[in-house]
Amino acid sequence: MTALDAVGPAQVLAGMPGARVQWVAAEPGPKRTDCGMAIVAAVALGALERPDVVLVPGAVDVRPVMKDDRVLGWLRGAHQTTRWTTSVCTGALILGAAGLLEGKRATTHWLMLDKLAAFGAEPVAERVVVDGKLVTGAGVSAGIDLALRLVQTIAGDAAAQTVQLAIEYDPAPPFSAGSPKSAPPAVLEAAGRALSRASA
Amino acid sequence: MTALDAVGPAQVLAGMPGARVQWVAAEPGPKRTDCGMAIVAAVALGALERPDVVLVPGAVDVRPVMKDDRVLGWLRGAHQTTRWTTSVCTGALILGAAGLLEGKRATTHWLMLDKLAAFGAEPVAERVVVDGKLVTGAGVSAGIDLALRLVQTIAGDAAAQTVQLAIEYDPAPPFSAGSPKSAPPAVLEAAGRALSRASA
Repeated sequence: MTALDAVGPAQVLAGMPGARVQWVAAEPGPKRTDCGMAIVAAVALGALERPDVVLVPGAVDVRPVMKDDRVLGWLRGAHQTTRWTTSVCTGALILGAAGLLEGKRATTHWLMLDKLAAFGAEPVAERVVVDGKLVTGAGVSAGIDLALRLVQTIAGDAAAQTVQLAIEYDPAPPFSAGSPKSAPPAVLEAAGRALSRASA
Repeated sequence: MTALDAVGPAQVLAGMPGARVQWVAAEPGPKRTDCGMAIVAAVALGALERPDVVLVPGAVDVRPVMKDDRVLGWLRGAHQTTRWTTSVCTGALILGAAGLLEGKRATTHWLMLDKLAAFGAEPVAERVVVDGKLVTGAGVSAGIDLALRLVQTIAGDAAAQTVQLAIEYDPAPPFSAGSPKSAPPAVLEAAGRALSRASA
Protein backbone atom coordinates (compact mmCIF):
# COMPACT_ATOMS: atom_id res chain seq x y z
CA MET A 1 0.00 0.00 0.00
CA THR A 2 1.07 3.55 -0.64
CA ALA A 3 0.74 4.81 2.91
CA LEU A 4 -0.11 8.43 2.14
CA ASP A 5 -2.96 7.35 -0.21
CA ALA A 6 -4.79 6.15 2.87
CA VAL A 7 -3.38 8.24 5.71
CA GLY A 8 -3.94 11.64 4.05
CA PRO A 9 -7.71 11.16 3.76
CA ALA A 10 -7.92 9.26 7.07
CA GLN A 11 -6.40 12.23 8.89
CA VAL A 12 -8.98 14.53 7.32
CA LEU A 13 -11.98 12.24 7.80
CA ALA A 14 -11.00 11.46 11.41
CA GLY A 15 -11.38 15.19 12.12
CA MET A 16 -14.96 15.32 10.86
CA PRO A 17 -17.46 15.62 13.75
CA GLY A 18 -19.08 12.24 14.41
CA ALA A 19 -16.83 10.31 12.03
CA ARG A 20 -15.48 6.89 12.91
CA VAL A 21 -12.59 5.74 10.72
CA GLN A 22 -12.01 1.99 10.45
CA TRP A 23 -9.29 0.18 8.51
CA VAL A 24 -10.53 -3.00 6.90
CA ALA A 25 -8.83 -5.77 4.96
CA ALA A 26 -9.60 -9.23 3.65
CA GLU A 27 -7.32 -10.49 6.40
CA PRO A 28 -6.86 -8.15 9.35
CA GLY A 29 -3.37 -7.50 10.62
CA PRO A 30 -0.30 -5.46 9.72
CA LYS A 31 -0.17 -4.44 6.05
CA ARG A 32 3.14 -3.59 4.42
CA THR A 33 3.48 -0.10 2.96
CA ASP A 34 6.07 1.57 0.73
CA CYS A 35 7.21 3.80 3.63
CA GLY A 36 9.24 1.33 5.69
CA MET A 37 6.49 0.33 8.10
CA ALA A 38 3.23 -1.56 8.36
CA ILE A 39 -0.21 -0.15 9.04
CA VAL A 40 -2.58 -2.35 11.02
CA ALA A 41 -6.01 -3.04 9.54
CA ALA A 42 -7.91 -4.18 12.62
CA VAL A 43 -11.23 -5.06 11.01
CA ALA A 44 -12.14 -7.88 8.62
CA LEU A 45 -14.16 -6.92 5.55
CA GLY A 46 -17.04 -9.11 6.67
CA ALA A 47 -17.27 -7.30 10.00
CA LEU A 48 -18.11 -3.98 8.33
CA GLU A 49 -21.22 -4.33 6.22
CA ARG A 50 -22.69 -0.90 5.72
CA PRO A 51 -20.00 1.77 5.71
CA ASP A 52 -21.21 5.28 4.84
CA VAL A 53 -17.98 6.08 3.03
CA VAL A 54 -15.57 3.61 1.47
CA LEU A 55 -12.10 4.81 0.46
CA VAL A 56 -9.82 2.48 -1.48
CA PRO A 57 -6.14 3.46 -1.41
CA GLY A 58 -3.67 2.41 -4.07
CA ALA A 59 -0.24 0.90 -4.30
CA VAL A 60 2.55 0.85 -6.82
CA ASP A 61 1.23 -2.54 -7.89
CA VAL A 62 -2.45 -3.22 -7.19
CA ARG A 63 -2.73 -6.25 -9.50
CA PRO A 64 -2.96 -8.81 -6.64
CA VAL A 65 -5.90 -6.91 -5.12
CA MET A 66 -7.57 -6.52 -8.52
CA LYS A 67 -7.78 -10.34 -8.61
CA ASP A 68 -8.94 -10.82 -5.01
CA ASP A 69 -12.61 -11.78 -5.17
CA ARG A 70 -13.04 -11.26 -1.44
CA VAL A 71 -12.18 -7.58 -1.86
CA LEU A 72 -14.04 -7.07 -5.13
CA GLY A 73 -17.18 -8.82 -3.88
CA TRP A 74 -17.16 -6.82 -0.66
CA LEU A 75 -16.73 -3.56 -2.56
CA ARG A 76 -19.67 -4.37 -4.84
CA GLY A 77 -21.82 -5.19 -1.82
CA ALA A 78 -20.78 -2.15 0.21
CA HIS A 79 -21.32 0.13 -2.79
CA GLN A 80 -25.03 -0.73 -2.77
CA THR A 81 -25.54 1.27 0.40
CA THR A 82 -22.62 3.69 0.68
CA ARG A 83 -23.19 7.38 0.60
CA TRP A 84 -19.81 7.81 -1.10
CA THR A 85 -17.57 5.22 -2.75
CA THR A 86 -14.12 6.68 -3.26
CA SER A 87 -10.56 5.93 -4.23
CA VAL A 88 -7.17 7.58 -4.17
CA CYS A 89 -4.43 6.98 -6.72
CA THR A 90 -4.43 3.45 -8.17
CA GLY A 91 -7.24 2.50 -5.79
CA ALA A 92 -9.38 3.48 -8.79
CA LEU A 93 -8.09 0.41 -10.64
CA ILE A 94 -9.47 -1.73 -7.80
CA LEU A 95 -12.86 -0.02 -8.09
CA GLY A 96 -12.60 -0.63 -11.83
CA ALA A 97 -11.85 -4.33 -11.35
CA ALA A 98 -14.93 -4.51 -9.12
CA GLY A 99 -16.97 -3.16 -12.04
CA LEU A 100 -17.85 0.09 -10.30
CA LEU A 101 -16.38 2.49 -12.87
CA GLU A 102 -18.49 1.36 -15.83
CA GLY A 103 -19.79 4.48 -17.61
CA LYS A 104 -18.30 6.79 -14.94
CA ARG A 105 -15.97 9.76 -15.18
CA ALA A 106 -12.97 8.92 -13.02
CA THR A 107 -9.33 9.70 -12.29
CA THR A 108 -6.26 7.97 -10.85
CA HIS A 109 -2.50 8.52 -10.67
CA TRP A 110 -1.42 10.37 -13.84
CA LEU A 111 0.81 7.46 -14.89
CA MET A 112 -2.16 5.07 -14.91
CA LEU A 113 -4.86 7.36 -16.25
CA ASP A 114 -5.22 5.62 -19.60
CA LYS A 115 -5.83 2.28 -17.85
CA LEU A 116 -9.25 3.45 -16.66
CA ALA A 117 -10.81 3.11 -20.12
CA ALA A 118 -10.41 -0.68 -19.92
CA PHE A 119 -13.02 -0.63 -17.12
CA GLY A 120 -15.51 1.34 -19.18
CA ALA A 121 -14.66 4.60 -17.43
CA GLU A 122 -13.99 7.99 -18.96
CA PRO A 123 -10.51 9.04 -17.74
CA VAL A 124 -10.43 12.65 -16.53
CA ALA A 125 -7.16 14.45 -15.77
CA GLU A 126 -8.40 16.32 -12.72
CA ARG A 127 -7.36 16.18 -9.07
CA VAL A 128 -10.75 15.07 -7.75
CA VAL A 129 -13.53 13.73 -9.97
CA VAL A 130 -17.12 13.36 -8.74
CA ASP A 131 -19.63 11.29 -10.71
CA GLY A 132 -22.75 10.55 -8.74
CA LYS A 133 -21.64 9.00 -5.49
CA LEU A 134 -18.35 7.88 -6.98
CA VAL A 135 -15.41 10.14 -6.07
CA THR A 136 -11.93 9.37 -7.40
CA GLY A 137 -8.71 11.20 -6.62
CA ALA A 138 -5.47 11.56 -8.54
CA GLY A 139 -2.14 10.29 -7.20
CA VAL A 140 -1.19 9.86 -3.53
CA SER A 141 -1.41 13.37 -2.03
CA ALA A 142 -4.69 14.08 -3.86
CA GLY A 143 -6.45 12.10 -1.15
CA ILE A 144 -6.16 15.06 1.21
CA ASP A 145 -8.03 17.33 -1.20
CA LEU A 146 -10.57 14.59 -1.94
CA ALA A 147 -11.30 14.06 1.74
CA LEU A 148 -11.70 17.78 2.41
CA ARG A 149 -14.26 17.85 -0.40
CA LEU A 150 -16.07 14.92 1.24
CA VAL A 151 -16.13 16.66 4.63
CA GLN A 152 -17.43 19.81 2.94
CA THR A 153 -20.25 17.87 1.30
CA ILE A 154 -21.13 15.76 4.34
CA ALA A 155 -20.64 18.25 7.17
CA GLY A 156 -20.48 21.68 5.54
CA ASP A 157 -17.96 24.40 4.75
CA ALA A 158 -17.14 25.31 8.34
CA ALA A 159 -16.41 21.70 9.31
CA ALA A 160 -14.08 21.26 6.32
CA GLN A 161 -12.31 24.54 7.02
CA THR A 162 -11.89 23.55 10.67
CA VAL A 163 -10.21 20.28 9.68
CA GLN A 164 -8.07 22.08 7.13
CA LEU A 165 -6.85 24.49 9.80
CA ALA A 166 -6.39 21.73 12.39
CA ILE A 167 -4.00 19.94 10.01
CA GLU A 168 -2.53 23.31 8.96
CA TYR A 169 -3.09 22.46 5.31
CA ASP A 170 -1.67 25.58 3.75
CA PRO A 171 0.54 23.82 1.23
CA ALA A 172 3.79 25.37 0.06
CA PRO A 173 5.60 22.90 -2.20
CA PRO A 174 9.12 24.09 -3.05
CA PHE A 175 8.49 23.51 -6.77
CA SER A 176 5.65 23.58 -9.24
CA ALA A 177 6.31 20.02 -10.37
CA GLY A 178 3.44 18.06 -8.88
CA SER A 179 1.46 17.49 -12.05
CA PRO A 180 2.44 16.08 -15.44
CA LYS A 181 1.21 19.42 -16.80
CA SER A 182 3.69 21.44 -14.75
CA ALA A 183 6.71 19.13 -14.30
CA PRO A 184 9.74 19.59 -16.55
CA PRO A 185 9.95 16.86 -19.24
CA ALA A 186 13.08 15.28 -17.70
CA VAL A 187 11.30 15.01 -14.33
CA LEU A 188 8.24 13.47 -15.98
CA GLU A 189 10.45 10.84 -17.55
CA ALA A 190 12.39 10.19 -14.31
CA ALA A 191 9.21 9.78 -12.24
CA GLY A 192 7.71 7.42 -14.83
CA ARG A 193 10.89 5.35 -14.79
CA ALA A 194 11.08 5.23 -10.98
CA LEU A 195 7.44 4.17 -10.62
CA SER A 196 7.65 1.56 -13.37
CA ARG A 197 10.77 0.11 -11.73
CA ALA A 198 9.02 -0.03 -8.37
CA SER A 199 6.03 -1.89 -9.84
CA ALA A 200 8.11 -4.41 -11.81
CA MET B 1 0.65 9.96 17.20
CA THR B 2 -0.83 12.15 14.53
CA ALA B 3 -0.42 9.76 11.63
CA LEU B 4 0.01 12.31 8.84
CA ASP B 5 2.79 14.10 10.78
CA ALA B 6 4.94 11.03 10.17
CA VAL B 7 3.48 9.48 7.01
CA GLY B 8 3.59 12.64 4.89
CA PRO B 9 7.36 13.05 5.21
CA ALA B 10 7.97 9.28 5.19
CA GLN B 11 6.25 9.02 1.80
CA VAL B 12 8.48 11.79 0.45
CA LEU B 13 11.73 10.55 2.01
CA ALA B 14 11.07 6.95 0.91
CA GLY B 15 11.10 8.22 -2.68
CA MET B 16 14.57 9.74 -2.37
CA PRO B 17 17.17 7.66 -4.21
CA GLY B 18 19.17 5.57 -1.75
CA ALA B 19 17.01 6.43 1.24
CA ARG B 20 16.06 3.85 3.83
CA VAL B 21 13.19 4.87 6.09
CA GLN B 22 12.99 3.18 9.49
CA TRP B 23 10.36 3.68 12.20
CA VAL B 24 11.83 3.63 15.69
CA ALA B 25 10.30 3.75 19.14
CA ALA B 26 11.34 3.24 22.75
CA GLU B 27 9.37 0.01 22.59
CA PRO B 28 8.87 -1.44 19.10
CA GLY B 29 5.39 -2.57 18.10
CA PRO B 30 2.07 -1.10 16.98
CA LYS B 31 1.62 2.55 17.98
CA ARG B 32 -1.84 4.05 18.26
CA THR B 33 -2.62 7.01 16.01
CA ASP B 34 -5.50 9.48 15.83
CA CYS B 35 -6.69 7.96 12.53
CA GLY B 36 -8.33 4.74 13.73
CA MET B 37 -5.36 2.46 13.21
CA ALA B 38 -1.90 1.64 14.52
CA ILE B 39 1.41 2.11 12.77
CA VAL B 40 4.10 -0.44 13.52
CA ALA B 41 7.49 0.86 14.67
CA ALA B 42 9.68 -2.17 13.99
CA VAL B 43 12.98 -0.87 15.34
CA ALA B 44 14.02 -0.11 18.93
CA LEU B 45 15.75 3.22 19.52
CA GLY B 46 18.90 1.48 20.67
CA ALA B 47 19.14 -0.48 17.42
CA LEU B 48 19.53 2.69 15.34
CA GLU B 49 22.52 4.65 16.52
CA ARG B 50 23.59 6.93 13.73
CA PRO B 51 20.64 7.99 11.58
CA ASP B 52 21.42 10.61 8.93
CA VAL B 53 18.03 12.25 9.35
CA VAL B 54 15.81 12.11 12.42
CA LEU B 55 12.18 13.22 12.10
CA VAL B 56 10.04 13.50 15.22
CA PRO B 57 6.29 13.54 14.55
CA GLY B 58 3.78 15.05 16.94
CA ALA B 59 0.51 14.15 18.56
CA VAL B 60 -2.41 16.01 20.03
CA ASP B 61 -0.80 15.38 23.42
CA VAL B 62 2.96 14.84 23.44
CA ARG B 63 3.41 15.35 27.18
CA PRO B 64 4.08 11.64 27.94
CA VAL B 65 6.90 11.57 25.38
CA MET B 66 8.31 14.88 26.65
CA LYS B 67 8.90 13.09 29.97
CA ASP B 68 10.32 9.86 28.52
CA ASP B 69 14.06 9.90 29.21
CA ARG B 70 14.64 6.98 26.85
CA VAL B 71 13.39 9.09 23.93
CA LEU B 72 14.99 12.35 25.04
CA GLY B 73 18.35 10.72 25.74
CA TRP B 74 18.33 8.94 22.39
CA LEU B 75 17.46 12.15 20.55
CA ARG B 76 20.32 14.02 22.22
CA GLY B 77 22.73 11.23 21.28
CA ALA B 78 21.50 10.87 17.70
CA HIS B 79 21.61 14.65 17.20
CA GLN B 80 25.40 14.58 17.73
CA THR B 81 25.89 12.89 14.37
CA THR B 82 22.74 13.55 12.32
CA ARG B 83 22.93 15.53 9.15
CA TRP B 84 19.43 16.84 9.84
CA THR B 85 17.38 16.75 13.03
CA THR B 86 13.77 17.56 12.23
CA SER B 87 10.25 17.66 13.59
CA VAL B 88 6.72 18.07 12.33
CA CYS B 89 3.91 19.68 14.30
CA THR B 90 4.19 19.17 18.07
CA GLY B 91 7.22 16.95 17.51
CA ALA B 92 9.06 20.24 18.05
CA LEU B 93 7.99 20.19 21.70
CA ILE B 94 9.75 16.82 22.05
CA LEU B 95 12.92 18.26 20.50
CA GLY B 96 12.51 21.16 22.93
CA ALA B 97 12.17 18.84 25.91
CA ALA B 98 15.39 17.14 24.78
CA GLY B 99 17.10 20.54 24.96
CA LEU B 100 17.75 20.74 21.22
CA LEU B 101 15.88 23.99 20.53
CA GLU B 102 17.91 26.22 22.89
CA GLY B 103 18.78 29.41 21.00
CA LYS B 104 17.22 28.11 17.76
CA ARG B 105 14.58 29.56 15.46
CA ALA B 106 11.81 26.96 15.26
CA THR B 107 8.16 26.35 14.46
CA THR B 108 5.38 23.93 15.40
CA HIS B 109 1.59 23.65 15.06
CA TRP B 110 0.13 27.18 15.14
CA LEU B 111 -1.84 26.42 18.30
CA MET B 112 1.36 25.55 20.18
CA LEU B 113 3.73 28.13 18.72
CA ASP B 114 4.06 30.20 21.89
CA LYS B 115 5.12 27.10 23.86
CA LEU B 116 8.46 27.01 22.05
CA ALA B 117 9.85 29.99 23.97
CA ALA B 118 9.87 27.89 27.16
CA PHE B 119 12.61 25.76 25.56
CA GLY B 120 14.76 28.79 24.74
CA ALA B 121 13.67 28.79 21.10
CA GLU B 122 12.58 31.73 19.00
CA PRO B 123 9.07 30.84 17.69
CA VAL B 124 8.71 31.58 13.97
CA ALA B 125 5.30 31.49 12.24
CA GLU B 126 6.53 29.90 9.00
CA ARG B 127 5.73 26.58 7.37
CA VAL B 128 9.28 25.24 7.47
CA VAL B 129 12.06 26.78 9.56
CA VAL B 130 15.71 25.90 9.05
CA ASP B 131 18.32 26.84 11.68
CA GLY B 132 21.63 25.11 11.11
CA LYS B 133 20.84 21.41 10.89
CA LEU B 134 17.62 21.80 12.83
CA VAL B 135 14.53 21.83 10.60
CA THR B 136 11.07 22.24 12.13
CA GLY B 137 7.73 22.14 10.34
CA ALA B 138 4.36 23.63 11.19
CA GLY B 139 1.26 21.50 11.81
CA VAL B 140 0.60 18.02 10.40
CA SER B 141 0.52 18.49 6.60
CA ALA B 142 3.59 20.77 6.71
CA GLY B 143 5.73 17.63 6.97
CA ILE B 144 5.26 17.02 3.24
CA ASP B 145 6.72 20.43 2.38
CA LEU B 146 9.49 19.98 4.97
CA ALA B 147 10.50 16.60 3.53
CA LEU B 148 10.54 17.92 -0.04
CA ARG B 149 12.91 20.66 1.17
CA LEU B 150 15.12 17.97 2.74
CA VAL B 151 15.20 15.92 -0.46
CA GLN B 152 16.05 19.06 -2.40
CA THR B 153 18.96 19.82 -0.07
CA ILE B 154 20.23 16.25 0.16
CA ALA B 155 19.67 14.98 -3.38
CA GLY B 156 19.06 18.07 -5.51
CA ASP B 157 16.21 19.83 -7.30
CA ALA B 158 15.52 17.10 -9.86
CA ALA B 159 15.24 14.40 -7.18
CA ALA B 160 12.80 16.51 -5.16
CA GLN B 161 10.73 17.34 -8.24
CA THR B 162 10.63 13.66 -9.19
CA VAL B 163 9.25 12.72 -5.77
CA GLN B 164 6.77 15.60 -5.91
CA LEU B 165 5.48 14.36 -9.27
CA ALA B 166 5.46 10.70 -8.15
CA ILE B 167 3.15 11.63 -5.26
CA GLU B 168 1.26 14.03 -7.55
CA TYR B 169 1.70 16.82 -5.01
CA ASP B 170 -0.13 19.57 -6.85
CA PRO B 171 -2.30 20.65 -3.92
CA ALA B 172 -5.76 22.09 -4.49
CA PRO B 173 -7.43 22.63 -1.11
CA PRO B 174 -11.09 23.59 -1.49
CA PHE B 175 -10.64 26.57 0.84
CA SER B 176 -7.96 29.04 1.84
CA ALA B 177 -8.33 28.17 5.52
CA GLY B 178 -5.18 26.21 6.28
CA SER B 179 -3.34 28.86 8.27
CA PRO B 180 -4.38 31.00 11.24
CA LYS B 181 -3.56 33.96 8.97
CA SER B 182 -6.13 32.93 6.34
CA ALA B 183 -8.86 31.09 8.28
CA PRO B 184 -12.06 32.94 9.20
CA PRO B 185 -12.13 33.88 12.92
CA ALA B 186 -14.98 31.44 13.70
CA VAL B 187 -12.98 28.59 12.13
CA LEU B 188 -9.89 29.57 14.10
CA GLU B 189 -11.91 29.39 17.28
CA ALA B 190 -13.57 26.07 16.34
CA ALA B 191 -10.25 24.41 15.47
CA GLY B 192 -8.67 25.62 18.70
CA ARG B 193 -11.61 24.25 20.67
CA ALA B 194 -11.56 20.87 18.86
CA LEU B 195 -7.82 20.41 19.38
CA SER B 196 -7.94 21.47 23.03
CA ARG B 197 -10.78 19.02 23.64
CA ALA B 198 -8.81 16.22 21.95
CA SER B 199 -5.75 16.86 24.14
CA ALA B 200 -7.66 17.13 27.40
